[in-house]
Amino acid sequence: MHVTDLIRRKRDGGELQRSEIEFLINGYTSDTIPDYQMSAWLMAVLLRGMTRAELTALTESMLHSGQVLDFSDLPAPKVDKHSTGGVGDKTSLVLAPVVAAGGLYVPMISGRGLGHTGGTLDKLESIPGFNVNLSADDFRRVLKQCGAAMIGQTAEIAPADKRLYALRDVTGTVESPYLICASIMSKKLAEGIDGLVLDVKTGSGAFMKSEKDAIFLAELMVETGQRLGKHMIALITSMDQPLGHAVGNALEVAECIEVLNGRGPDDLCELCNLLSAWMFLVGKRVPDLEAGRELAQQMISSGKAKAKFKEMVSLQRGNAAALDDPILLPRAKHRTDIPSPSSGFVSSIMVEQIGTAGVLLGGGREKKEDAVDPAVGMMIHKRPGDKVSLGEPLCTVHYNSAERLERARPLILASYKISAERPSEKPPLVRRLVEEKR
Amino acid sequence: MHVTDLIRRKRDGGELQRSEIEFLINGYTSDTIPDYQMSAWLMAVLLRGMTRAELTALTESMLHSGQVLDFSDLPAPKVDKHSTGGVGDKTSLVLAPVVAAGGLYVPMISGRGLGHTGGTLDKLESIPGFNVNLSADDFRRVLKQCGAAMIGQTAEIAPADKRLYALRDVTGTVESPYLICASIMSKKLAEGIDGLVLDVKTGSGAFMKSEKDAIFLAELMVETGQRLGKHMIALITSMDQPLGHAVGNALEVAECIEVLNGRGPDDLCELCNLLSAWMFLVGKRVPDLEAGRELAQQMISSGKAKAKFKEMVSLQRGNAAALDDPILLPRAKHRTDIPSPSSGFVSSIMVEQIGTAGVLLGGGREKKEDAVDPAVGMMIHKRPGDKVSLGEPLCTVHYNSAERLERARPLILASYKISAERPSEKPPLVRRLVEEKR
Repeated sequence: MHVTDLIRRKRDGGELQRSEIEFLINGYTSDTIPDYQMSAWLMAVLLRGMTRAELTALTESMLHSGQVLDFSDLPAPKVDKHSTGGVGDKTSLVLAPVVAAGGLYVPMISGRGLGHTGGTLDKLESIPGFNVNLSADDFRRVLKQCGAAMIGQTAEIAPADKRLYALRDVTGTVESPYLICASIMSKKLAEGIDGLVLDVKTGSGAFMKSEKDAIFLAELMVETGQRLGKHMIALITSMDQPLGHAVGNALEVAECIEVLNGRGPDDLCELCNLLSAWMFLVGKRVPDLEAGRELAQQMISSGKAKAKFKEMVSLQRGNAAALDDPILLPRAKHRTDIPSPSSGFVSSIMVEQIGTAGVLLGGGREKKEDAVDPAVGMMIHKRPGDKVSLGEPLCTVHYNSAERLERARPLILASYKISAERPSEKPPLVRRLVEEKR
Repeated sequence: MHVTDLIRRKRDGGELQRSEIEFLINGYTSDTIPDYQMSAWLMAVLLRGMTRAELTALTESMLHSGQVLDFSDLPAPKVDKHSTGGVGDKTSLVLAPVVAAGGLYVPMISGRGLGHTGGTLDKLESIPGFNVNLSADDFRRVLKQCGAAMIGQTAEIAPADKRLYALRDVTGTVESPYLICASIMSKKLAEGIDGLVLDVKTGSGAFMKSEKDAIFLAELMVETGQRLGKHMIALITSMDQPLGHAVGNALEVAECIEVLNGRGPDDLCELCNLLSAWMFLVGKRVPDLEAGRELAQQMISSGKAKAKFKEMVSLQRGNAAALDDPILLPRAKHRTDIPSPSSGFVSSIMVEQIGTAGVLLGGGREKKEDAVDPAVGMMIHKRPGDKVSLGEPLCTVHYNSAERLERARPLILASYKISAERPSEKPPLVRRLVEEKR
């Protein structure tokens, strides 16, 4: 098998066999195929696309480049949720305890903040003491004991993806939906799950700005998962405004506690309820979505989900007392309101700018090596459709550095569009479902 | 300037500025841009193409990566011819002396055999003693003294092309007409010429199988040369049969001597006359093509071209006596005829197979490092349209190894298609001209 022939075939729009894709991924992972050949192939894939069979083979080759966890001895199905990332997107911290309390297992391996979007690990680490770096044995122990465990990517999980992603990042080959699908699915399927709920974000604050692109990516992931024997569903959800009010790691944890306490912002509560319901459904815990929604609601109103979250936090060495008393979470030294520059209605928020403002405050990373300040962030008071008066606070910024505040402030102000007329009805949070093919 | 942004722009079909292309080529040549980024960019170029302005900038950047010869002190224009390569394509050995005898300078830098096609250097080296590795000073001295000099690529000429070609060869990015154009033109323009005649081969034995592809490549090269201030013409010529009768290094030199003696096969004589005429025309030596044809003919019939060839061979340490007495050229130990397996008409020859048979006999390289046997090859007796009887020789093979003969024989036989009916008129040797835009 000649690498150049495989590159040329993909370049010319042809299809590679499963064994040929395995040869490429295994060769690249074992250093027999150099970066310069792989990057040429990746560019050919980006511009020519892949068949569904090729994509499945690529995902599986990347999956099997590392450890695939096996939780088949656990007495109930294992499910997870993956989001393509947004601003204020904190649902994982609610879903894991709700679904575990409802009787399924949630072995969740998450990532860190990337660009303007936050990361579940950074949020979890704002809980004092919480350890996201469990060994595989400890991950299993926590999962088995309480039904949910939340850790970071390990070197053993899909190492091919780690190398490919680093190469894609410097060769202009990040944006291929096929490569994005294989990257996400190879890592998620390594969790040993039976079902997966995808939350594919679209809109100004999402990686996929257009709904069409989001739907296409969702279709690829649902079909790939299905071909690999998993129960799949994808929700296309709006990221035209931050989810909930809180943006910033500890602020988001506090907001999740509100949700688990039966309060919290409507949009966040609704999305958490719906995603939980789908997780119950793909995990065969309930016969239909309505039953899933009810079960999720019960887990919250009964306090069982909150108790489950505290149990998991304790098992992962976090201070569970902070979940009852959020004052124990990291708090910024200063707060200031951002007043509205005019009266009228909020007609839109440029979500990517809000996310970037959060990064500039210190809540995310400008460079990979940067440390994250868990305390800083924003509480968004005014959202699209809201009436606002001149001088009324649009949001409250929590900050530790006046210099950082001044870098973030113009971005926050510029991201708000205030208009005289009441804007038309906002689009629904859930735009569309992408279901398995029967 | 970020390399990744430039890759992404080309990937998305955008245009790069001259300074951005210079940045890429200079960075690659100076090792600040790694292979894996360059190969991704090359694949994007292959699949997205380039504008003419981008192509000119690429050609110029590659040209200026090395030494550009300056012969502006010589008292007449400098011209050259470049062929995209074929089987039996030996015109350079005739053109250089004819055009130098006619009063222009021909500073010719050529290549070695590649794949199934022969190389001018390999042919020249079959003349005992001939040295193709002259220093820049010796190249100038020979050129100045006799009007023509023929050498091989030096490390100083367009080093960016050398590195890019090696990368393209292993990343499936050879076949882009844009990259082919920049590769050829950057090397040719380093010769310090005023005009260039291109012989772009098309047909079964050519690199560009389709006439459409050949015309497109020719248009790119003509326009690029013109934009860089050169007088250009391209002839699209047929490579549906070997050119002349001889295939093999010393056999081809002997055939060229025949042409210079005023004999030689019609197709070869005609193409040499036409290409010489165009070289005279782009070098402003004659007012029109007809005058160029006459001048070329005179140089042959007067014996001046032959004398010029002997002069150049002597100056490059070759044994000029071999040009009067071809028995002094290397001769294979054995000859054998390949008899026709049936009676009828030759309807076609698969030229690539004939070229490959020549390689198998030892006349070309299977691997880059292989030595070439100057003596072996084939004399083609029967060509498309010719009548042939059962057992009549199709060609005579000159060989030094019975084992190699047996590897080549089935390929030669398979390349001949004999049919009962006389085939239709063969297409003209020169299919089309691609001229400068006015």
